[in-house]
Amino acid sequence: MQQAFILSIGTELALGQTVDTNAAWLARELAAIGIRTTRHATLADELPLIVDVLKQTAAEHDLVLVTGGLGPTADDLTRTALAEAAGTDLVEDPDSLARIRAFFAERQREMPARNSVQALRPRTGRSLPNDCGTAPGVHVRIGGTPVYSLPGVPREMRAMFEAQVRPHLPVGRVIRSRILRSFGLGESDLGDRIRDLMQRGRNPEVGTTAAYALVGVRINATAETAPEADALLDRSEAEIRARLGDYVYGRDGETLPGAVLAMLATRGETLVTAESCTGGLVGEMLTDVPGSSRGYRGGVVTYANALKESLLDVPRDTLDTHGAVSEEVARAMADGARRILGGTWALATTGVAGPSGGTTDKPVGLVYIGLAGPDGTTVRRCLFGSDATRAAIRQRAALTALNLVRRRCLPSAED
Amino acid sequence: MQQAFILSIGTELALGQTVDTNAAWLARELAAIGIRTTRHATLADELPLIVDVLKQTAAEHDLVLVTGGLGPTADDLTRTALAEAAGTDLVEDPDSLARIRAFFAERQREMPARNSVQALRPRTGRSLPNDCGTAPGVHVRIGGTPVYSLPGVPREMRAMFEAQVRPHLPVGRVIRSRILRSFGLGESDLGDRIRDLMQRGRNPEVGTTAAYALVGVRINATAETAPEADALLDRSEAEIRARLGDYVYGRDGETLPGAVLAMLATRGETLVTAESCTGGLVGEMLTDVPGSSRGYRGGVVTYANALKESLLDVPRDTLDTHGAVSEEVARAMADGARRILGGTWALATTGVAGPSGGTTDKPVGLVYIGLAGPDGTTVRRCLFGSDATRAAIRQRAALTALNLVRRRCLPSAED
Repeated sequence: MQQAFILSIGTELALGQTVDTNAAWLARELAAIGIRTTRHATLADELPLIVDVLKQTAAEHDLVLVTGGLGPTADDLTRTALAEAAGTDLVEDPDSLARIRAFFAERQREMPARNSVQALRPRTGRSLPNDCGTAPGVHVRIGGTPVYSLPGVPREMRAMFEAQVRPHLPVGRVIRSRILRSFGLGESDLGDRIRDLMQRGRNPEVGTTAAYALVGVRINATAETAPEADALLDRSEAEIRARLGDYVYGRDGETLPGAVLAMLATRGETLVTAESCTGGLVGEMLTDVPGSSRGYRGGVVTYANALKESLLDVPRDTLDTHGAVSEEVARAMADGARRILGGTWALATTGVAGPSGGTTDKPVGLVYIGLAGPDGTTVRRCLFGSDATRAAIRQRAALTALNLVRRRCLPSAED
Repeated sequence: MQQAFILSIGTELALGQTVDTNAAWLARELAAIGIRTTRHATLADELPLIVDVLKQTAAEHDLVLVTGGLGPTADDLTRTALAEAAGTDLVEDPDSLARIRAFFAERQREMPARNSVQALRPRTGRSLPNDCGTAPGVHVRIGGTPVYSLPGVPREMRAMFEAQVRPHLPVGRVIRSRILRSFGLGESDLGDRIRDLMQRGRNPEVGTTAAYALVGVRINATAETAPEADALLDRSEAEIRARLGDYVYGRDGETLPGAVLAMLATRGETLVTAESCTGGLVGEMLTDVPGSSRGYRGGVVTYANALKESLLDVPRDTLDTHGAVSEEVARAMADGARRILGGTWALATTGVAGPSGGTTDKPVGLVYIGLAGPDGTTVRRCLFGSDATRAAIRQRAALTALNLVRRRCLPSAED
């Protein structure tokens, strides 16, 4: 099995001012194609140190991946270190320079002179084009070992690894992965339903990860060939779906808002929103999905009570009697949004996101979610925990709201 | 200055299944007492590898901190590796054994037999009691260099570092850090303005980090005492602010929406939003700030053109003649929002976030941002690059919109 070494470069990483997530991401991607990583290192921006580590690790491993240190400023030393470790000098790469100029031209800006250093590469290596930023990557051999150097910005690094590194790596035994996405069942309860499938040493390997009540079930299958691994994944996916039922809303890159929009598209229906405590987050999640305009018409963020009255026709009387955070106001907001904004469905949120503003009756974490539709209006009362952060309460509220629409649209809806 | 090395042990870390946050936390704690970390490493649970790295790094550094590999199972190899690297053998520590037994007794459980291995320590070292779990730490010298080994569970590791490691470390020169936050000037252009301050070897050390056009300028000052370091930071901050001017919106944990809200609060003014391509993101960023209801009244997300007409009074004629993505519609949205929603300021966004929907005239990445205020309405045309992702275009657009409000409210506004 091939052994890889991952090197993360940056004083901000060495001093702990930024937590490095690139090494873990790369190690997982390598594992997926059967390349094992037993070591990472993090180094400050110090040239002799970087050169030494590059030489030593290239001698001891089959592959070295480097992230960071490719920016245009004086503390970006990776290009120089790669050339030195490879025993060569730096030359300007004309294609890279043209691409960097084009990057700025497209934004109607002139390329700062400083950015031209990003077009340098070791004479014996080649540049790897960067489609998301100005820093090209570098491929070079050090003592015969292939070294790939990528920018430290995670989004750029990931795109470049996928497009320009992975296709050139030797594939060992195939590991294929799939993630089922669920919402509404806690990680422990979900784990109880698939306990036997999660035993260590099984193939496929099954594990869970959770964030804001979104629980992902990861399935890793190992086999000699990709079709064999995929067949294993298919069988596990069917078994897990049977156990989890409607809690599963999608797989891999699918998102809860994406699932809601797909469902609306199938039914030829539309959604509008009226947000108070989530402050635009439900709309933001929906419009993050390309093509969302087909199902999402828009909404209002009525943070001030005056706007709940003027934009949504919530009666002042209802606000005065029950308070803005109440079942009655959530209902009036949803009804008003459906009537005035005009959608098949209207979602409304009102609650106490904290950290202050909670009372005994209406604690931090209390959120009412209204959903108005062709068959009437329902309101759900949620308590997201007074110890949760403002961001967590808002995330949970927005996701719960979207999931209410999804479940109302399911053939077997009980909710 | 003392140089430390931080070693994180665990196959789950090396394979990337868990992101290590311990190394960054320890590096920050060490920096605060004047011990510099230029290297971390992450190693899989492989005995010869761990022993080699311990020996080599102990020879090259003044201090080695190790986390992980102290559990009771067969893949917990740190105790054995420490003894081997120190040239000694393992002995049972009676105090540790008694503490582990007591840990289980307190929870009314019997100590599993395998936990007794956690009471082992190198003969020449000593155990560090763990008040939060069963794994004692270990202190031992390898070739004269002090090595502290702590559990990998962050909560236990942090408590033990504070109680049992830090008090024994030599306090060297103090390093204090500060970050200035800027928006609107690219990383290269910003670097050009402070090039001389970023020269290597200067104290304070100055570097930059960038994400979505938010550029942070990090200042690390080293001195004998904290007040001296702070005085150095103050001087550098003043110098950098003089060079960057209004591009700086805050420091350390301050955010751009937070800066806008603070400015509005000082002026007793309010803001409303009318979002199309950002789909609620501006509102979401604002309401993410606790207490935002004082300055942010709310807004509308008018994704569908019909809602631009019905909620914002954008004339159908303007939409038909110029299209939804136009200077005229951005202006009408901002004017309508200010009039109908009622704020001192109204921000409007309309653009092509992609990935599809772009044309030659109106490419992906084209965004118009309108800002209506007491002194009239301005519209800015932005090109965020057709190769940027939908998420990146929306982020850039939302941040640029917020920054327009900030700059209009500045005493010296030119924008």
